[in-house]
Amino acid sequence: MKAGFYQFGPVFGDTGANLDKALNALSSEEYDLIVLPELFTTGYQFTSEEEVSYLSEKVPDGPTTASLARLSVEKGCYIVYGIAEKDGEQIFNSAVICGPDGYMGTYRKTHLFFEETLWFSPGNSGFKVWDTEIGRIGIMVCFDWFYPESARILSIMGAEVIAHPSNLVLPYCPDGMPMRCLENSVYAITANRTGTEDRHEDKKALTFIGSSQITGTKGEIIHRASGTNDEIHFEELDLELARSKDFNQYNNIMKDRRPDLYGKLTDDLNDDNS
Amino acid sequence: MKAGFYQFGPVFGDTGANLDKALNALSSEEYDLIVLPELFTTGYQFTSEEEVSYLSEKVPDGPTTASLARLSVEKGCYIVYGIAEKDGEQIFNSAVICGPDGYMGTYRKTHLFFEETLWFSPGNSGFKVWDTEIGRIGIMVCFDWFYPESARILSIMGAEVIAHPSNLVLPYCPDGMPMRCLENSVYAITANRTGTEDRHEDKKALTFIGSSQITGTKGEIIHRASGTNDEIHFEELDLELARSKDFNQYNNIMKDRRPDLYGKLTDDLNDDNS
Repeated sequence: MKAGFYQFGPVFGDTGANLDKALNALSSEEYDLIVLPELFTTGYQFTSEEEVSYLSEKVPDGPTTASLARLSVEKGCYIVYGIAEKDGEQIFNSAVICGPDGYMGTYRKTHLFFEETLWFSPGNSGFKVWDTEIGRIGIMVCFDWFYPESARILSIMGAEVIAHPSNLVLPYCPDGMPMRCLENSVYAITANRTGTEDRHEDKKALTFIGSSQITGTKGEIIHRASGTNDEIHFEELDLELARSKDFNQYNNIMKDRRPDLYGKLTDDLNDDNS
Repeated sequence: MKAGFYQFGPVFGDTGANLDKALNALSSEEYDLIVLPELFTTGYQFTSEEEVSYLSEKVPDGPTTASLARLSVEKGCYIVYGIAEKDGEQIFNSAVICGPDGYMGTYRKTHLFFEETLWFSPGNSGFKVWDTEIGRIGIMVCFDWFYPESARILSIMGAEVIAHPSNLVLPYCPDGMPMRCLENSVYAITANRTGTEDRHEDKKALTFIGSSQITGTKGEIIHRASGTNDEIHFEELDLELARSKDFNQYNNIMKDRRPDLYGKLTDDLNDDNS
């Protein structure tokens, strides 16, 4: 399958222009799967609940999902993108997948980063994998990558490629994704944004690191984008490599897991662990 | 605390000489914690069950643990080492911890690698952390590192430093341990061996990669040994850095975990997941 990302620098609050820019870029290429950045229509550095509420939209009934679902139907492709999703009184930092039949589903970010905790509700969807004609697609959003549970659960659920909309400001992710892919024998497409937002008088500006990346099942960096420029890029991925979890003739990295000894992973330790 | 490793090349089957070499090296230094390689008395590339049975020994009643427990009492220090542990009909690839009061406990390797699956029983101890006067010490053995569950569980249990006896032949671990330490905000001391074993006429030789490593809580490589030489090395570790799991003013990497959404991690999928 031919899969990739569109990296660009959304303008804060200019949802229509950001959507148009993405539609233009996505319309002029041929591919099976493309991933857009986290919160690609709104921008990232919100300053009030009112602002988040005003800029967020319903899924699938809002204009962004209407447009991208139409495009994915027209092109017969899959599109994954990050969006501020309004659901009644709650707003989620979500990622949506659309395909040849239109809107397919929504994942709500599990691990919120930094001030996102002020504006968004913690994700309640859990991790999801979509079994499509081009392969099994899982989704995680930005900081989810830091928690090994995220990519692990998606891989246990059968994901062959992880679509990873991001707004990265820390330096760790591009060099960390090889470990996530190696340990799970899975592909990942990290679609990050570029640019700087400086919307608080009393807080420091946020500079997004670009460096969107396609990472292979052996932990190899197949392609890494620049830190600053717009870029649309695709690679041919052989998902057969993600289907076999055989590591050698004696080890299979999924079958060798020992869930009988892993109980601590699901204990709720929030009351006694700092 | 002053902690480190002793990297050397055990001679296969020469358990007495390997133990003496380690005792000499460990006796002439001052430290709080030292880690020795996996299977440091026996060597690694067994050729028959009889051989494994002959070279393995009881814990704590065997000669290796008797000697190292005596040394740790004399020096008032902690020693972690890998050993072929005989327990009735079963033999485990284990790691033992001794301290100022002698023998403290045994961890049995959870994730066996390659032909180890022929010679050893899968570990049944689960992961363990020892709360000592110098800090909380967790243990994993070699290939355990590849499974993110291992270091994660030890960190959830409160480990501040992970002692990691190893016999690494693959290239991934030294560059992978930074992710393990970063994602858990924990120190790790990977004690690997050097040398080559070529004990099968019809199988390829195994070359151990040395490169023992002390990795810090931010994923920094504090020290990495050479690939080939004997080396005893220590660093001063500030375990306070491993106690706080605050990542920034909004995120705590342990409290932000979402065990309510992590159920898949403990599902037994061996019957339907390949």
